[in-house]
Amino acid sequence: MLLHQSTWIEIEQFLQRSRTVVIPIGSNEQHGPTGLLGTDWMCPEIIAHEAQKNADILIGPTFNIGMAQHHLGFPGTISLRPSTFIAAIGDWVRSLAGHGFEKILFLNGHGGNIASIEAAFSELYAEASFARRPAGFALKLFNWWDLEGVGELAHKQFPTGHGSHATPSEIAVTQWAYPDAIKSAHYSPQIANTGPIREAKDFRARFPDGRMGSDPALATPEKGGELVALAAKGLVQAVDTFSREPKPD
Amino acid sequence: MLLHQSTWIEIEQFLQRSRTVVIPIGSNEQHGPTGLLGTDWMCPEIIAHEAQKNADILIGPTFNIGMAQHHLGFPGTISLRPSTFIAAIGDWVRSLAGHGFEKILFLNGHGGNIASIEAAFSELYAEASFARRPAGFALKLFNWWDLEGVGELAHKQFPTGHGSHATPSEIAVTQWAYPDAIKSAHYSPQIANTGPIREAKDFRARFPDGRMGSDPALATPEKGGELVALAAKGLVQAVDTFSREPKPD
Amino acid sequence: MLLHQSTWIEIEQFLQRSRTVVIPIGSNEQHGPTGLLGTDWMCPEIIAHEAQKNADILIGPTFNIGMAQHHLGFPGTISLRPSTFIAAIGDWVRSLAGHGFEKILFLNGHGGNIASIEAAFSELYAEASFARRPAGFALKLFNWWDLEGVGELAHKQFPTGHGSHATPSEIAVTQWAYPDAIKSAHYSPQIANTGPIREAKDFRARFPDGRMGSDPALATPEKGGELVALAAKGLVQAVDTFSREPKPD
Amino acid sequence: MLLHQSTWIEIEQFLQRSRTVVIPIGSNEQHGPTGLLGTDWMCPEIIAHEAQKNADILIGPTFNIGMAQHHLGFPGTISLRPSTFIAAIGDWVRSLAGHGFEKILFLNGHGGNIASIEAAFSELYAEASFARRPAGFALKLFNWWDLEGVGELAHKQFPTGHGSHATPSEIAVTQWAYPDAIKSAHYSPQIANTGPIREAKDFRARFPDGRMGSDPALATPEKGGELVALAAKGLVQAVDTFSREPKPD
Amino acid sequence: MLLHQSTWIEIEQFLQRSRTVVIPIGSNEQHGPTGLLGTDWMCPEIIAHEAQKNADILIGPTFNIGMAQHHLGFPGTISLRPSTFIAAIGDWVRSLAGHGFEKILFLNGHGGNIASIEAAFSELYAEASFARRPAGFALKLFNWWDLEGVGELAHKQFPTGHGSHATPSEIAVTQWAYPDAIKSAHYSPQIANTGPIREAKDFRARFPDGRMGSDPALATPEKGGELVALAAKGLVQAVDTFSREPKPD
Amino acid sequence: MLLHQSTWIEIEQFLQRSRTVVIPIGSNEQHGPTGLLGTDWMCPEIIAHEAQKNADILIGPTFNIGMAQHHLGFPGTISLRPSTFIAAIGDWVRSLAGHGFEKILFLNGHGGNIASIEAAFSELYAEASFARRPAGFALKLFNWWDLEGVGELAHKQFPTGHGSHATPSEIAVTQWAYPDAIKSAHYSPQIANTGPIREAKDFRARFPDGRMGSDPALATPEKGGELVALAAKGLVQAVDTFSREPKPD
Repeated sequence: MLLHQSTWIEIEQFLQRSRTVVIPIGSNEQHGPTGLLGTDWMCPEIIAHEAQKNADILIGPTFNIGMAQHHLGFPGTISLRPSTFIAAIGDWVRSLAGHGFEKILFLNGHGGNIASIEAAFSELYAEASFARRPAGFALKLFNWWDLEGVGELAHKQFPTGHGSHATPSEIAVTQWAYPDAIKSAHYSPQIANTGPIREAKDFRARFPDGRMGSDPALATPEKGGELVALAAKGLVQAVDTFSREPKPD
Repeated sequence: MLLHQSTWIEIEQFLQRSRTVVIPIGSNEQHGPTGLLGTDWMCPEIIAHEAQKNADILIGPTFNIGMAQHHLGFPGTISLRPSTFIAAIGDWVRSLAGHGFEKILFLNGHGGNIASIEAAFSELYAEASFARRPAGFALKLFNWWDLEGVGELAHKQFPTGHGSHATPSEIAVTQWAYPDAIKSAHYSPQIANTGPIREAKDFRARFPDGRMGSDPALATPEKGGELVALAAKGLVQAVDTFSREPKPD
Repeated sequence: MLLHQSTWIEIEQFLQRSRTVVIPIGSNEQHGPTGLLGTDWMCPEIIAHEAQKNADILIGPTFNIGMAQHHLGFPGTISLRPSTFIAAIGDWVRSLAGHGFEKILFLNGHGGNIASIEAAFSELYAEASFARRPAGFALKLFNWWDLEGVGELAHKQFPTGHGSHATPSEIAVTQWAYPDAIKSAHYSPQIANTGPIREAKDFRARFPDGRMGSDPALATPEKGGELVALAAKGLVQAVDTFSREPKPD
Repeated sequence: MLLHQSTWIEIEQFLQRSRTVVIPIGSNEQHGPTGLLGTDWMCPEIIAHEAQKNADILIGPTFNIGMAQHHLGFPGTISLRPSTFIAAIGDWVRSLAGHGFEKILFLNGHGGNIASIEAAFSELYAEASFARRPAGFALKLFNWWDLEGVGELAHKQFPTGHGSHATPSEIAVTQWAYPDAIKSAHYSPQIANTGPIREAKDFRARFPDGRMGSDPALATPEKGGELVALAAKGLVQAVDTFSREPKPD
Repeated sequence: MLLHQSTWIEIEQFLQRSRTVVIPIGSNEQHGPTGLLGTDWMCPEIIAHEAQKNADILIGPTFNIGMAQHHLGFPGTISLRPSTFIAAIGDWVRSLAGHGFEKILFLNGHGGNIASIEAAFSELYAEASFARRPAGFALKLFNWWDLEGVGELAHKQFPTGHGSHATPSEIAVTQWAYPDAIKSAHYSPQIANTGPIREAKDFRARFPDGRMGSDPALATPEKGGELVALAAKGLVQAVDTFSREPKPD
Repeated sequence: MLLHQSTWIEIEQFLQRSRTVVIPIGSNEQHGPTGLLGTDWMCPEIIAHEAQKNADILIGPTFNIGMAQHHLGFPGTISLRPSTFIAAIGDWVRSLAGHGFEKILFLNGHGGNIASIEAAFSELYAEASFARRPAGFALKLFNWWDLEGVGELAHKQFPTGHGSHATPSEIAVTQWAYPDAIKSAHYSPQIANTGPIREAKDFRARFPDGRMGSDPALATPEKGGELVALAAKGLVQAVDTFSREPKPD
């Protein structure tokens, strides 16, 4: 069930049977010579939309801009500062919690988001903690590549050249979903180098075409389809486990 | 051309021939018994995506959560506070301007966003003004219903019962784009009443089913298609005019 | 009744008979070669002070600095950023609402303030909406030139050359109130040109003497007196209507 | 010379002969049974306006709302939080410094403002200090009662019953300037008690009629006139000294 | 009793017998050619730790970075902006007040902190005042040099050359506590000059070796020991007086 | 070399030979029935102070309050919100970078700090990235338990009952450094249970005595001494590696 394609009355009814909602969250940032700028928000969106086709779970609109400051040296990247990101996640959660949602699961598509999302969760919990009252909600972050079995599959599909940015697995997912937008390029070197992440000018100097440790040429739509199918199954299971988690006495 | 389905290299090339980008912006909020929660961000997205099919214009990702505080009494609404909204628009604009975009056009789908978007523009210009330097960019807001001819068409299509929230014109647009998500309901009264907008509890008391002055039963996918076609044409023209606007000497 | 010339005991008594207060709000910014820097806050102050002479309405201190970032290229302009402006309006409203005022009417003298004031209202309402409780107050913005009949009178007085900044109508109002501060200059062109509002450097390049579309030479103290009399009457009426507005059931 | 009754061209000319501007700053807050709510911003305004009649000094608009949180228990008080206050002072200073003002003197009328104004100055200086560049301006705070000779005169006029809030000296100043707004009351006790300043509920419990240590019945318009005359002279002198202060080598 | 060397259970027990806690607060900033960078936070820490040896008072962790923007021109200085400082003090107080502490005494070691600490107190009280509820805590600032008798002793020890920054008294205190870190230098001039405090570049130009009006050569560990002993006694007394202060009826 | 026990001239000299500084950072929070409230900031301080005894590395003052919102249900815990924490880390880094430090290493003692510290780093880098300029500094976070060999030693020392909060390893470190502050208690159960971290009320309900998965009875001062010795060695090595890290071309 897609929240944005539902009416408020349908959501009111959904709240009778579940208090859990999934928010796909990612980033809009360069993904090397062939990766789509939207890769990191399109992957969790693709997986979450797929998952709700066969399960009674609720998927919210996609939070499509994240913490991508280090990619700002490449055109098309759009980033929030952590402080803005934290404020925005806060307003999403406060909106949803006010409707009665008690379990809010962010399905994340960008490694660079993790620290800021966790900090946002702490900021939200702190509001309750400073006031010595219960928060009324539980927040959880799942990276799609950490869903049950997904990491193993990616490792099997791409034993070398997976890397950490513009990876063949994420590119495969978007190839499966948007076959008309598959791009190609000559990569040099075939597997990109690695290094630390600092600010944008430093990043572009270290990683001239934007990839980190990856060989995107390994991606195929078929492998993407396999990843989506497994991740969608893993998401349904993660939602189920999270929904059942008991409160402390 | 969709920014998020492009690579950074394609955007770098686009910047050689144009310095203008369009951001669809809206809100995720209740739209009465039959309107989709995503109506206000889906409408500008639908129109902008349609427009780029036949014109060399660049459409960014959709800014899908806006200023909908007065709808928070209805489940499914997600709102940013104006302060968060202003901060986030700021980071989008600073990201894009840093890449060389000089004309950033927000195609808006929610009347309640207008004041906060304009305030965000002022906040961004003020950074330059306090430093007594040029901003390097021009910002413009277009509501899709104000694009050339669109208001007249809507008035012709819906001479009565158009109203100002959950209007038949916006619902028609989403019906055209998402025919599988068309909903129906019995409306009472047929045309909803009107009144002032205050905070969420007050809003729900004044407008029990969420509509303001509208009769959504008048919407049809066909009328939606007419609106989209005309608005898409109007957007291409608005982009062209904005792109040509000269700087002062 | 002027709040700042009253004691707290007199305000406590006023609250027994009315819950409405008027705040004149404007901007301190260049107004062309002959307009006073204080024009935009002095106009609503003049009108509001006049109005309370013959009616039992309460006028607060004048909020004299607004959103004038685009005028910062001209000496004497003082501007708040929208974010500061919103925070300050918030503290004024929270102070007054805490005393029991339920209807707070801002009488505005500057077009550039409108978006930020409306955004401030939304920010205030959002505090209540996110908490799902009533705000306890209603906020309304009136531009003095939109008070009953005022626009028509100005149009009759100045059929051409009214423009939108450093207008003969606002200059006439200050001439009537401060006859010792009437200035004169040679205007070239007689009617200033028009154009978009961006940041300060751009503004000064487009509008070299600070006027937008206006011929201030048309102003006279007599015309100013007529405008003040009509606007004062309109304000009393607006306060009355706002005070009577019922809450939803 | 009053900035708000001048044109931008007159300010541009003033900047040829002086780089100093005076901002009257105060608070709008209860002042006991007979003191006007505007006392603390009207006093520095009265003195500064008087001072510019016989000296070529520039007086800006009055910053009329300050840090009065502890008076919020009394109707009519309007307060900014320190954080809002600091932000607003910052925007005033940045506006004025951008025009070329290098010495900005705040003439203060409220003891409760001092810490926050000094903190605002530090915040402004810190912007330059963190960037290791000169600020380009110097900021100074003068309380009107600390101007040359004023404290001694007040002590001579009111050897007992001066106190620290709703003092006979400040009330006398407003009586001189606004003789039509002189109020009277029976005081009990004649001289109010003293104590620490905490939050508003605590304040009202300690100081039931709002006074702190004062007997306002001692005020007369004549004494007010003497104070204004001396303070105006002291202000001219303070401006002169500040203007001449050399920069370090 | 040192809070950080206690367990939460010991603090829970302490709260049965007292609701007062002392926070040493200072700054890490240059202190001339021989003063330690930590002088301003080490002095109140030394005194507070000494005081708790013979009295049942509770000393919290030291707040060691304050408002030192004007010293940023000298290596080793670490400063918070006033806005950050105020936010941090706020979180400390909200944490402690939530545990039941009702009297929170900051023992300060840096004159430059005073305005910002007082502004922080006002910001905290304002939260309660705007909500018209009691704060539940009282906050007090003591500079260690203002504790009973300390100023007199310093004056007797250092009748000339005390000055206001890198003073022999504060240096003597650190010499007593950290004899291994005593430094020496040739001073020129022997007694440093004085002047106003602005931003960092200005400060370093006015005060080339960092001292203001002081002759640190006068410091000895013995004099430091005398100051610590007296200040520790004064602190115990100040805590006692503050703890006994009654609430208003 | 301890920064706070040095003069600014000594730091100026240090900067001739190194551009690296270490900041111990932790948290002040409950650590079960026997752990000291300061454990998490005292551990990195102890290790860093030990490390500088035999190596020419510079240790700054300890950042002693971190992100401990979930422990606020236990007396003595002091927490910053993530937003305050990020702002404060920002000011520390901007202060140090302004002096010429190019490598700033935070030695962390609290797992709950990690996300917020990383978010703070991103916020700092983003300032440079949005402006498309180099940051001028590199930031790195080390948890003391991740220093070379430390995790293995702890695992060998405490094969069971280590847990994740109030661990025997961190308690052993403080026992070694502060033998007079060793506490004892009866634990029930001997090894505490585990679970997710939410807000403070939830935390205290899940973890009644504050421990998570640990048996602190296993700690001894001797084991603490071994950990400190190894960690100090690891820190010197980490500083060396970080200092040598080359910039990109």
